[in-house]
Amino acid sequence: MTADRRNRYGVTRSSGGWLARACVLLVVALLWSNVCLAQQDPLPSWNAGTTKQQIEDFVKKVTTNGSPDFVAPEKRIAVFDNDGTLWAEQPIYFEFFFVLDQVKAQAPQHPEWKTTEPFKSTLAGDMKGLAASGEKGAAELMAATHAGMTTEEFAQNVNQWVSTARHPKTHRAFTEMVYQPMLELLHYLRDNGFKTYIVSGGGQDFMRAWAEPVYGIPPEQVIGSEGELKFEERGGRPVLVKEPKVALIDDHEGKPVGIERFIGRRPIFAFGNSDGDQQMLEWTISGDGPRFAGLVHHTDAQREFAYDRKSPVGKLDKALDEAAAKGWTVVDMKKDWNQIFPPEKQ
Amino acid sequence: MTADRRNRYGVTRSSGGWLARACVLLVVALLWSNVCLAQQDPLPSWNAGTTKQQIEDFVKKVTTNGSPDFVAPEKRIAVFDNDGTLWAEQPIYFEFFFVLDQVKAQAPQHPEWKTTEPFKSTLAGDMKGLAASGEKGAAELMAATHAGMTTEEFAQNVNQWVSTARHPKTHRAFTEMVYQPMLELLHYLRDNGFKTYIVSGGGQDFMRAWAEPVYGIPPEQVIGSEGELKFEERGGRPVLVKEPKVALIDDHEGKPVGIERFIGRRPIFAFGNSDGDQQMLEWTISGDGPRFAGLVHHTDAQREFAYDRKSPVGKLDKALDEAAAKGWTVVDMKKDWNQIFPPEKQ
Repeated sequence: MTADRRNRYGVTRSSGGWLARACVLLVVALLWSNVCLAQQDPLPSWNAGTTKQQIEDFVKKVTTNGSPDFVAPEKRIAVFDNDGTLWAEQPIYFEFFFVLDQVKAQAPQHPEWKTTEPFKSTLAGDMKGLAASGEKGAAELMAATHAGMTTEEFAQNVNQWVSTARHPKTHRAFTEMVYQPMLELLHYLRDNGFKTYIVSGGGQDFMRAWAEPVYGIPPEQVIGSEGELKFEERGGRPVLVKEPKVALIDDHEGKPVGIERFIGRRPIFAFGNSDGDQQMLEWTISGDGPRFAGLVHHTDAQREFAYDRKSPVGKLDKALDEAAAKGWTVVDMKKDWNQIFPPEKQ
Repeated sequence: MTADRRNRYGVTRSSGGWLARACVLLVVALLWSNVCLAQQDPLPSWNAGTTKQQIEDFVKKVTTNGSPDFVAPEKRIAVFDNDGTLWAEQPIYFEFFFVLDQVKAQAPQHPEWKTTEPFKSTLAGDMKGLAASGEKGAAELMAATHAGMTTEEFAQNVNQWVSTARHPKTHRAFTEMVYQPMLELLHYLRDNGFKTYIVSGGGQDFMRAWAEPVYGIPPEQVIGSEGELKFEERGGRPVLVKEPKVALIDDHEGKPVGIERFIGRRPIFAFGNSDGDQQMLEWTISGDGPRFAGLVHHTDAQREFAYDRKSPVGKLDKALDEAAAKGWTVVDMKKDWNQIFPPEKQ
């Protein structure tokens, strides 16, 4: 065998031979390591079944060289909603807990809040009073907690909150209420040459503060709702100040707009969980060639939450009908996922 | 020698030995290929001198492992203005030629333009009359050529124009009026782990149509001025329609805003050529750690154009003073570049 191989590839101990031998051995080593990797399941938290199969089939066909469905790596754009798709969103969007906590933290500097809505109700924990303040109240809370400071100060506020705040039901850190199967899916796609993006109705700057360590998604691939910014000088150095004026609401029709504005290519793979994701999924599948549209259906009241058509948060109604009509992939959380959250950090 | 090496790494002909030997040989091969590459000048169109040295020194120090100035690859963000920095901009921004040509192309469908400004002057080639129509006229021309169509239709218009239009002085395709030294710089940075971005006052969709084949910069790394988009259904499929409403003017103070909005990280390397780039350079250098700010100074009337403080297009006045005061790198095009444009395609 050894003699054969030597003759076949002309490998000798002469000066030029070692490089040729290195190449041969390298190829063998790479083939071997691929075989080893292929034996590991990249999606262990996904139960075997149609859903998992649809994901794997799609990734295989767009990455198989010579396949009629092959997609060049630079066009393998995958977009994910965040709230309810990558992390939980009940009893209310987690960013809202940040808003409440920020109001409480800033209250000592604003004695007038004790008697002014929507701050009065917020500080008293009176959710009915808060709800009564409506959209105007919500805008005032956003302005007080998401504007007026520099982008750096805001990122610090978010990071401090993320490292200390806990979910009222699970008592976990919010960043530990991400879905383990979706973390695996993000990795699986990136390992197959996809560029993974968040496209969320949540605040862009809010998510960027922690998305990289949590999801492995860098800031430039996090698209969200955003306010205007103002370039000015503070303390002798240039800063960007967050303004209380909306630049983009990255939800419903705003999602395809955000995608085009930031990426400039139509995704081939999209995952959401609510009617707010419907247009993003429609935009994704309406391009040429192979396309994947997925929805997470929250069906597991025991391990997470169960809600869809009637939920005020993460309402999934029209998009669920469209998924059935068009054959989109729908994750049945209870059936398809054998684990919901990652193991808790000690 | 052979016997020594075998003993040192324990390489034998036994079953496990070949992998170890492959690794050793691979490392040797990689070291050798690095030596070969290091001997090639990655910036051959740049003359030896201070400017070239400053660029090379910066790249070396931020990419040298263990250096106090080492910057992790994900933070190696480099931003480039386009007009006057990556391609020429005289006698007027090239996108303006696109606007004029589009008005002429669409004129048969708009008989009223023959008697209505600013279209009348545009069609008659009366630049004085056009200038007299002022900002209002410019906005009308932009609306007529940059809005009302889908993003896909617009990209087709730009691609068709790019493939046929010629510069009035050089008679070259506009995309062949890119600067060869800057193409080399883009490659050099990317080879050293940088992510290269365009941050330009020009139209984002206009540049995205051709930036990838010309500069090797994908659409998602092209930031420019942009209009609002509207998601709607046309002919039974979802489309994004370009609206005649400005979303971002990516110039002067708008450049740091565009950078933060799209990238969410402060660049460590920035290159511009005019006062419109001043805030981008200030924003770049005001971060911690090593920073590079560069300006292209158009000093070569013979091979390109010579202009700075008094030019209505690409005015370089305040930024030139700041460069001198702060020690920014200033490219003297005549002295520093031994080639301006790439060889013309046949």
